[in-house]
Amino acid sequence: MKIGVLGTGMVGNAIASKLVALGHHVMMGSRTADNVNATTWVKTAGARGTVGTFADAAAFGELVFNCTQGASSLAALRAAGAANLEGKIIVDVANVLSSGGSGSESLGEQIQNAFPLVKVVKTLNTMNCELMVNPSKLGESHTLFISGNDAGAKTKVRELLQAFGWTDVMDLGDIVTARATEGYLPLWLSVWKHLGTLSFNIKVVR
Amino acid sequence: MKIGVLGTGMVGNAIASKLVALGHHVMMGSRTADNVNATTWVKTAGARGTVGTFADAAAFGELVFNCTQGASSLAALRAAGAANLEGKIIVDVANVLSSGGSGSESLGEQIQNAFPLVKVVKTLNTMNCELMVNPSKLGESHTLFISGNDAGAKTKVRELLQAFGWTDVMDLGDIVTARATEGYLPLWLSVWKHLGTLSFNIKVVR
Repeated sequence: MKIGVLGTGMVGNAIASKLVALGHHVMMGSRTADNVNATTWVKTAGARGTVGTFADAAAFGELVFNCTQGASSLAALRAAGAANLEGKIIVDVANVLSSGGSGSESLGEQIQNAFPLVKVVKTLNTMNCELMVNPSKLGESHTLFISGNDAGAKTKVRELLQAFGWTDVMDLGDIVTARATEGYLPLWLSVWKHLGTLSFNIKVVR
Repeated sequence: MKIGVLGTGMVGNAIASKLVALGHHVMMGSRTADNVNATTWVKTAGARGTVGTFADAAAFGELVFNCTQGASSLAALRAAGAANLEGKIIVDVANVLSSGGSGSESLGEQIQNAFPLVKVVKTLNTMNCELMVNPSKLGESHTLFISGNDAGAKTKVRELLQAFGWTDVMDLGDIVTARATEGYLPLWLSVWKHLGTLSFNIKVVR
């Protein structure tokens, strides 16, 4: 599949590298096509990796990952352009520290509202990026949540997640449930501080 | 130990019954000493169970559980009276749907700020009340979080929690970290809706 990855930080790097390793063609997008992180990444990515602007990557991808920082995600997606994103799946991986909780709209909802013709799927936002693309790093199964309005889009994203190695994927419902996973961020931060390692995730024990 | 339990709902009932079963002397407190839930409970509780007002229960207990609904917890504790609570440990089990998240003060902090001479320990607020007092109901280990400013109070509460059957108790830090566990409520609600059962909890997989 042709996939656009918006964002050149640790998360974008991890997602883009995994997708290339799985055989996908990936364009990493940033504000400027000469972004140092992106041009460094592309050297290691092999023939299936390319770089461009946010708009280039959005136009390139049949599916687009939002791996930008949550606070600037809407600006990045506006730069990517509604026309380039129309009808596509956006896998929204980002968090905003001030979002979440039950009282305010989540970033996932904000993106869906700002771009009504895209299919936003919120997932992978509840763990460190190394675990996102390599869940078997932990010794036992743990849980991944997924939220979105479009059932077909969630099925397609779920197949990608299974290729990443995820086995326990829990569909919480429509994009409003992104509030639940985004609101988990303060607990994730507290557990990280307590454990002193990013190598953890939660498992829903039934 | 002599323990006051404020609140006569399902949570207060579960906690009070467990404490009596463990050999503690428990007074269940409510707004009025003739509360129907409380007088019903006391009939099953045996010789170690008694009922009274919030103030009676607070005065009775060396340690006090707040099992009132989060939205009315501060009013209940004011009715219990700062003088009756002074120097004591309050185990705060309550949640408010609108609290939590990273932006606003948690109920745990609000109680600590309103009653500076008590030692608030926030815990047990991340699962259904049956699991609170019977964690082995699930087939494998799962995680309980604890927050509070006073190390000695947390040690004392941890001993009680171990008597409840808890083995994986994670100390997140001071009472400010109650925001993390209270902010988890929307995710808990979404998982409940998805699973259709209250019999679940999260485990931090390292």
